[in-house]
Amino acid sequence: GLFVSSAFSQDDPLPSWNDGPTKSAIIEFVESVTREGSPTFVRPINRIAVFDNDGTLWPEDPIPFQLAFALDELKRLAPSHPEWKNNPVLQAGLNDDIPTLLTSGEKGLIEILDASHTKITTTEFDKRVQNWSRTAKHPRFKRRYLDLTYQPMQEVLRYLRANKFKTWIVSGGGADFMRVWSRRVYGIPPEQVIGSVGNTKFGMQEGLPVLIKEPGVSFVDDKTGKPVGIHRQLGRRPIAAFGNSDGDLEMLQWTTIERKTSFGLIVHHTDAVREYAYDAHPKSSGKLVKALEQAKGNGWVVVDMKNDWATIFSPEK
Amino acid sequence: GLFVSSAFSQDDPLPSWNDGPTKSAIIEFVESVTREGSPTFVRPINRIAVFDNDGTLWPEDPIPFQLAFALDELKRLAPSHPEWKNNPVLQAGLNDDIPTLLTSGEKGLIEILDASHTKITTTEFDKRVQNWSRTAKHPRFKRRYLDLTYQPMQEVLRYLRANKFKTWIVSGGGADFMRVWSRRVYGIPPEQVIGSVGNTKFGMQEGLPVLIKEPGVSFVDDKTGKPVGIHRQLGRRPIAAFGNSDGDLEMLQWTTIERKTSFGLIVHHTDAVREYAYDAHPKSSGKLVKALEQAKGNGWVVVDMKNDWATIFSPEK
Ligand SMILES: [Ca+2]
Ligand SMILES: [Ca+2]
Repeated sequence: GLFVSSAFSQDDPLPSWNDGPTKSAIIEFVESVTREGSPTFVRPINRIAVFDNDGTLWPEDPIPFQLAFALDELKRLAPSHPEWKNNPVLQAGLNDDIPTLLTSGEKGLIEILDASHTKITTTEFDKRVQNWSRTAKHPRFKRRYLDLTYQPMQEVLRYLRANKFKTWIVSGGGADFMRVWSRRVYGIPPEQVIGSVGNTKFGMQEGLPVLIKEPGVSFVDDKTGKPVGIHRQLGRRPIAAFGNSDGDLEMLQWTTIERKTSFGLIVHHTDAVREYAYDAHPKSSGKLVKALEQAKGNGWVVVDMKNDWATIFSPEK
Repeated sequence: GLFVSSAFSQDDPLPSWNDGPTKSAIIEFVESVTREGSPTFVRPINRIAVFDNDGTLWPEDPIPFQLAFALDELKRLAPSHPEWKNNPVLQAGLNDDIPTLLTSGEKGLIEILDASHTKITTTEFDKRVQNWSRTAKHPRFKRRYLDLTYQPMQEVLRYLRANKFKTWIVSGGGADFMRVWSRRVYGIPPEQVIGSVGNTKFGMQEGLPVLIKEPGVSFVDDKTGKPVGIHRQLGRRPIAAFGNSDGDLEMLQWTTIERKTSFGLIVHHTDAVREYAYDAHPKSSGKLVKALEQAKGNGWVVVDMKNDWATIFSPEK
C-alpha cells in the first residue's frame, strides 16, 4: 500500500506533502475505500468528501477573503451612499478598522454584508465578484486572492476525485460568493458548494425573471449548521471531512462517529513564517480548541502545516 | 433529425410517446443542444433539466403521495397520541376527511406534517418512509405508490441523461421524503433533489451525532420558491424545466425567458379514463391556469396526456 504508492515520486499523489504519518493516513484511507472486496470498500456513489474553505483550502488571515471583498465593495459603493456616514459599523469597514468590526459581532457582519451584497440581482452580484477577483490582492502575499489556495489541499482534492470521490465545499462563507469561482479554483461545480445563504426573492422586472439578493440571512452554514446544510443539500452523510476550526466540529462528528469507514482531518495552522500560526486565538476567524481536543479520541488526523506541508501555496498562474 | 430519430422503433428514445408535435419538440430540443458546432449547442456541464414531481412524474390524485404517507403514519401513531382526539385537523386526517383537511389550508397541512414527520431522527424517518413504500398502495390503481410513475416521463429522464444532461427534481414535496427513493424510482441521486425543507437540528445523543426533524418548515419549494430553491442548491439556471401546474410557473419563467437555448414543458392532465383530467379545478393540488395561459407566448410545450402518451404508467415491477 503506502510504500508502493509513495516510494516513487512519479506515483506520488501528494507530492507537496512531506512523508510521515499524516500523508500516510490520507493515502491509507483512500486505498482502504477503493480496494474491492475489502470490508472497508465504499462504492463510488457513496464516496463523498466535504471541505471547509477558509483556513482549510486557503487562508483566512488577516480577514476571510469574502470580508475583504465586502470591504472593497463598501469603498467602491460609498460615494453613492452618504447615509453610511452615520453608521459606525460601516464606517469601521470603510476605515479597515477590523478590531471595531470584530467587536460588532455577527450583527455587525450582517450589516456589512447587507450593504455590500444585497439589493442587486444574483447576476449583478456574480459580475461584481468576478470583477473584484481579477485584481484584488492579498495584503501580505501580494497575490490575487483566488490564486492563494493551498497546494497540498489541491492535491488532496484531485487525488480523491481520481479515486471517484465527489468533492464538496461546506463553508460558513456565502454560497453565492463561492459559486462564482468554485469550479475554476477547485474544480468543484456550483451544485457541490454548500454555504451560508442570504435571503433571495424571485420577481419579474420588465418582463424578465430575476432573483434579488435581499438583506438578512436565511441559513448560517457553521457549527451545528454544517451537518444540517449537508443534510439539506447532499441528503446523506459524507465519508470524509476536512476542516480547521471549531466551526467544523459538528461536521467532523457527523461524518466520522459510528461510521464503518470514515476520515476526519484538521488543518492546524502552525507555520507563522510561510503562512500563519494560530488556534485558540485567531486574528479574526478560525478558533480551534474543542475540535483539537476531540481529535485524538475520534481518530481525526491533525495536519501540522509547518512540518507536513513541503509547499504551502499553489504555483503562480 | 426527427425523421431519422423516430422512424425506426429501435432508435426511438421515446417509445411511449405518440408521434406528433410534442414528441418532436422534445427530440428537436435535445438534438439542438447536443449538435456540436451548432449555435444552440450547450456544453454537457450546462445541460441541467429540472422536473416537478407530483403531477409531472407521477400522479397527485386523489391526494399527493406524501400526504397519503402522512395520513397512514397518523393512523399508525394515533394509539400513542390520545391528545390528537382534541385536534380537529388531525381528526380529519385520521378519518380520511380530505375536504376538511383541504379547507384547513397550509396551516392544517403543517399540523399533519408536524404530527407525522417530526420529533424523530432523520434515520428513523428514512426507515418509516421505506417501510410504508413497501406495502402502501394507491386506492384506484391498486399498485404501490412508488411503482406508479409515468412511463413517458421516465423515458424523457433516461433520454436526457443519455445525452449528458443532469436531471434534477424540483418539487413542493419534502426533500427528506423524496430522497429516500429518488435514486431507485427515477435514477436521481439524493443531492439532485430540491424540495421543501423542514426544520432540522443537530445534536449529540448518548455520544452519537443525530439530526432531529423538528416541527415547522424552513423553506417552501413552490411557486416563487422554485427558482429560489434552484438557486440555493444548483446555483445556476437549468436549460429545461418540466412541470404541470401554476406552482411551476416561476420555475418555467426562470428556465426559459431570455435564454439562448431552453425548453419548457407542461403536462396537462386530460385523460380521465387512464389517469385524471383536471386543470383549473384539481381534486387536491395541481391547479393549472396561469402557466397554461402563458405557455404559448413563452413557447412552452403542452403535453396532452390523452393523445400524446401511448402508455401512462411504467410496467409492473
Ligand atoms: Ca475554516
Ligand atoms: Ca406538480
